[in-house]
Amino acid sequence: MHTITEYREEFIAYLDSMKITKEPRNLYEPITYILGLGGKRLRPVLVLMTAEIFKGDFKKALDAAVAIEVFHNFSLVHDDIMDDAPVRRGQTTVHEKWDINTGILSGDAMLIMAYQLFENYEPNVFRDLAKLFSKTALEVCEGQQYDVDFETRDDVMLPEYLKMIEYKTAVLVAAALKMGAIVAGASDTAQEQMYNFGLNLGIAFQLQDDYLDVFGDPETFGKQVGGDIIENKKTYLYLKALNSGSEMMTKELEHLYSIQPKEADAKIKAVRSIFEKTEADKATKVAITDYTAKAFEVLDGMEIELENKDLLKQFGENLMNRTV
Amino acid sequence: MHTITEYREEFIAYLDSMKITKEPRNLYEPITYILGLGGKRLRPVLVLMTAEIFKGDFKKALDAAVAIEVFHNFSLVHDDIMDDAPVRRGQTTVHEKWDINTGILSGDAMLIMAYQLFENYEPNVFRDLAKLFSKTALEVCEGQQYDVDFETRDDVMLPEYLKMIEYKTAVLVAAALKMGAIVAGASDTAQEQMYNFGLNLGIAFQLQDDYLDVFGDPETFGKQVGGDIIENKKTYLYLKALNSGSEMMTKELEHLYSIQPKEADAKIKAVRSIFEKTEADKATKVAITDYTAKAFEVLDGMEIELENKDLLKQFGENLMNRTV
Repeated sequence: MHTITEYREEFIAYLDSMKITKEPRNLYEPITYILGLGGKRLRPVLVLMTAEIFKGDFKKALDAAVAIEVFHNFSLVHDDIMDDAPVRRGQTTVHEKWDINTGILSGDAMLIMAYQLFENYEPNVFRDLAKLFSKTALEVCEGQQYDVDFETRDDVMLPEYLKMIEYKTAVLVAAALKMGAIVAGASDTAQEQMYNFGLNLGIAFQLQDDYLDVFGDPETFGKQVGGDIIENKKTYLYLKALNSGSEMMTKELEHLYSIQPKEADAKIKAVRSIFEKTEADKATKVAITDYTAKAFEVLDGMEIELENKDLLKQFGENLMNRTV
Repeated sequence: MHTITEYREEFIAYLDSMKITKEPRNLYEPITYILGLGGKRLRPVLVLMTAEIFKGDFKKALDAAVAIEVFHNFSLVHDDIMDDAPVRRGQTTVHEKWDINTGILSGDAMLIMAYQLFENYEPNVFRDLAKLFSKTALEVCEGQQYDVDFETRDDVMLPEYLKMIEYKTAVLVAAALKMGAIVAGASDTAQEQMYNFGLNLGIAFQLQDDYLDVFGDPETFGKQVGGDIIENKKTYLYLKALNSGSEMMTKELEHLYSIQPKEADAKIKAVRSIFEKTEADKATKVAITDYTAKAFEVLDGMEIELENKDLLKQFGENLMNRTV
């Protein structure tokens, strides 16, 4: 087995070795650009790690790993257009650096290229990978649509929110793990277990992201702390606070989530205080612990070597402590 | 064998039987909408027809036919955003009826759904279809990029233009024919021949579209006659005229293609006159005839029953007379 750093380096070397930019340059240069912006490469690392856990050659999983990363970046390019976001990973977004049309078309090409990366696998593996990929990709689109829909709805329920983050974030983590298992020829049961491990871990990860967005350390949290509050994003914290507060607090929270003051500090502070008074912060922490525990429970039930369980558990723990 | 009308009706019935709209509705309703706008359904008809020509059950080709149609409509939705087009098939475009974000996301979902339609085929057929589809889809994106690039270039050459229309239009016609052959289990040679027949026919079709856009009968041509001239589109006619005219005529044409008068009639008349004086009109007709002849030549060399050759030839002739 290799370390996470080694998988990441192998992945980056492989990605760099692909000469993506060709004619027409205006289509392919934005793709090379966004893929080169970096990021933690969590998803491709998971593909490689899982392949090796099931006694496969991790090098055989490199194409699947690139496919997952290309798809993830496709979704970032199109989401950034939809959110009108100027910055991604500290750099200019594709549609800002080029234009919206370039972002749309280069994104489309990336989605297709992701499928092409499965073509080197033999027919049965190809079909398994492509089927999982299509299901996952469509769910990510659905998750994005729910996210958009929620912006203008005032009756979002917690189970709906959980389904949204499951689709928008967790299924891709789950698919990454399952793809490694598919490439290595693991049993259907093992594939499903890896998927469920990833799904629960992915939900925990997103809930933690919600939590850190409000209570995180500005020094170590990658994004602007309070960003979700500024954007009036209906996160787990918000929905939980609405359910758990007195009528007065609910009214105040709804008011705070209806305004967009230029100077956001007071609003952030007020919302944070409501999250604490309603104990939405604690409830969120409990949910994070529950989903993480569920993930580790699935892991415990798997028939893989103990050291590999430890490796995945360690990955999960690092992820939840955000040191990966 | 069935008639073109029968294939079309079978296709539409099958498409209607699919319940595409589900939750989240804002993602799937635009897909049902654009697929319901109609159109000639040429590409899916070609898939079904070819499957039966190679002794396959055309019903087995229905999923592949829907995939081609869904992809075609995906490209229309995204192209209409890029072109800022308000109308498609006489109806409001998706991004006008909903918004740009809906157009982007629903389009993405369509691209993924097209791949899913291959999942009912057995692994080898699935891989052959998905590979051809990916190659074709990426070429369509490249063609669209070339088309965009040409708008701001003043040194577009005829071979480049031919490559652009090959990618943007012809490869999808070719892929439709090849897919029918794949589903029916035709030989590799037969598959390639069908592809080449479609490729040449597709190029002829697009050149004819260029021609009719200027010289067509406003009564029967589906689009606004003179539309390409109004938009200063560098078509085969334009590029040929630039190459064949005197210096004075070249200058005048370049001038006319640099203006966008509110009242376009005079400009259209002047450009049309240059196309005639430079005999670009005749040259375009020759090119149309040449590509059509090339398509029929490929057809002649195929080992299929004579009546099937006649059927495809008739389809091609109808297409070139725009009565299909």
